[in-house]
Amino acid sequence: MITLSIDAMGGDHGPKVVLPALLTVLSRRSDVRFLIYGREEVVRPILDAHPRLAAASRFTHCEVEVRMDDKPSQALRQGRGKSSMWRAIEAVKLGEAEACISAGNTGALMAMSKFCLRTMANIERPAIAAIWPTVRSESIVLDVGATIGADAHQLVDFSILGAAMARALFEIDRPTVGLLNVGIEDVKGQEDVKDAARLLREADLSSMKYHGFVEGNDIGAGTVDVVVTEGFTGNIALKTAEGTARQIGTYLREAMQRTVMAKIGYLFAKGAFERLRMKLNVGKSNGGVFLGLNGIVVKSHGGADAEGFAAAVDLAYDMVRNRLLDRIEADLDLFHARHLRSGALRAEDESEPETEE
Amino acid sequence: MITLSIDAMGGDHGPKVVLPALLTVLSRRSDVRFLIYGREEVVRPILDAHPRLAAASRFTHCEVEVRMDDKPSQALRQGRGKSSMWRAIEAVKLGEAEACISAGNTGALMAMSKFCLRTMANIERPAIAAIWPTVRSESIVLDVGATIGADAHQLVDFSILGAAMARALFEIDRPTVGLLNVGIEDVKGQEDVKDAARLLREADLSSMKYHGFVEGNDIGAGTVDVVVTEGFTGNIALKTAEGTARQIGTYLREAMQRTVMAKIGYLFAKGAFERLRMKLNVGKSNGGVFLGLNGIVVKSHGGADAEGFAAAVDLAYDMVRNRLLDRIEADLDLFHARHLRSGALRAEDESEPETEE
Repeated sequence: MITLSIDAMGGDHGPKVVLPALLTVLSRRSDVRFLIYGREEVVRPILDAHPRLAAASRFTHCEVEVRMDDKPSQALRQGRGKSSMWRAIEAVKLGEAEACISAGNTGALMAMSKFCLRTMANIERPAIAAIWPTVRSESIVLDVGATIGADAHQLVDFSILGAAMARALFEIDRPTVGLLNVGIEDVKGQEDVKDAARLLREADLSSMKYHGFVEGNDIGAGTVDVVVTEGFTGNIALKTAEGTARQIGTYLREAMQRTVMAKIGYLFAKGAFERLRMKLNVGKSNGGVFLGLNGIVVKSHGGADAEGFAAAVDLAYDMVRNRLLDRIEADLDLFHARHLRSGALRAEDESEPETEE
Repeated sequence: MITLSIDAMGGDHGPKVVLPALLTVLSRRSDVRFLIYGREEVVRPILDAHPRLAAASRFTHCEVEVRMDDKPSQALRQGRGKSSMWRAIEAVKLGEAEACISAGNTGALMAMSKFCLRTMANIERPAIAAIWPTVRSESIVLDVGATIGADAHQLVDFSILGAAMARALFEIDRPTVGLLNVGIEDVKGQEDVKDAARLLREADLSSMKYHGFVEGNDIGAGTVDVVVTEGFTGNIALKTAEGTARQIGTYLREAMQRTVMAKIGYLFAKGAFERLRMKLNVGKSNGGVFLGLNGIVVKSHGGADAEGFAAAVDLAYDMVRNRLLDRIEADLDLFHARHLRSGALRAEDESEPETEE
């Protein structure tokens, strides 16, 4: 049995979308239970109307809810200990739930998750990982906005986190990892990215295959399973791709309404267009995963519908079932054991001239 | 009469694409002349076959050509003074041509352009500006990869350069300028981006309207006329958008071939799809503009066909006709005059306490 904690008040639509989503998840799986946090007067009537969901859930009333436009500091101050978002995260910390899902505001969710769960040993900063649909299948891209900037060691951490997630979700033994850069030649790019490349090559981890640098167009092409970058660039890449998809959707709609022939063609190909629309929506419905914390937190898109929130819940479920946290810990131990050893060797090398003197 | 210098040897196809492109341009405009640089044995036969192009051109044989995979330093070493790329750029420096167009390798073209033309007074680094198709029309995005990183003052320079280009190309009196960031609230983002925002707001230039921060999805939405960012992020955003467009094209082709109904629909809507394909190709065919140098250099996409290269030539023509360089110089003077004045005021303010003591 897998227990998931749910912030019922997050997102643009709150319990009206979140609870039907849980029903959908229940109809697909019998081994899942929910800890639901939210306001009694809105959540209880929906639970009462759906006895099957009520039976699979434990509900806890929370007086406070984090609003979509609250600043992270404000949300922490007003919502710590008592908001539905905090209580859902805290359930993971207390071991009552194995993962938390919220469609609430990203900044507040990250601030509370960091404060409550803390980052894992050996990890300096958490990252937000997005699942990116590609021509080949799906890739993981991180960090898409947890923090701005990352040094070489943090990029290596992100690589380990992303590779573990790829192994847990895609069932690949040794996922390929690429560092996002402005060219694929070894000489190009930021110093931190170049240093991270060297560290990853030297470490030669059994948990991933370091591919090299990848460029922006490689993300959608699915060149690697995991694309690693710092949060500023990752966030802009993600939103640029979303914007481009929306833009092409607009072009397509306009083109199909321009002539009678096009309109007739559209009617015939309606099913195909519907399929395409679904495909373009994948990224939106899946949500982002907070990695590097002592617990799994999934952020669903604030505007997601019930199907979208259900996809975020499924994602959390899959990661729990495939023991994401254990994988991450094992990979981190492996890297740091190897790194300390090679670090120790390097220190010896450097001190040699002195001992010879 | 406008004279443009042409590197005939650049790009994946060289003179076979470049010279037909010039013929296309000539068929559209009578007031343009070309200085063509390249290898006699390939260029001359084509010129001989097209007397109209020959009559509008002056051809100069160059022994050396820069290859698409030459490193910038290598290209400079081997091609300085004698390659077709260098000679085309040099024609601008010598005042023989008013702009240079090459489909050659970007790194080499930028290195040679910087070396030969030098950056403008008051500009520390050049930028590459891309013309980005948007839902509303087109926007200018810079820097898309001339250099990595930019401090606040360089971001302000890019804003001035981009706004001048928008005024020259789009015929807008006061183009809107946005700084690319991970959120639109004032508190978010890198320090340099925040400082640039403050500088632009304080300067309140008549040559542009500073809009504020924009996010990745705002580029394709056409929220502002000019999107400013540093070259690493800009390059990744551009290539991510190109990759996304290609990805959706693949989805669309697959969807249209999946069922008989979809195939019939495709036949009816073929014209609409053709229009869409053209629209998605705009960015590719237009090429990037090097800004901040003492001369106009346009980089055509290396894989461009004749129509694409002709679009790059047209772009150079339009910028010359609309006096891009004069506009940039005037705007820079305006900003620096104002900035020096406000800088002087600030210095006075700061020294006040000392004089009171």
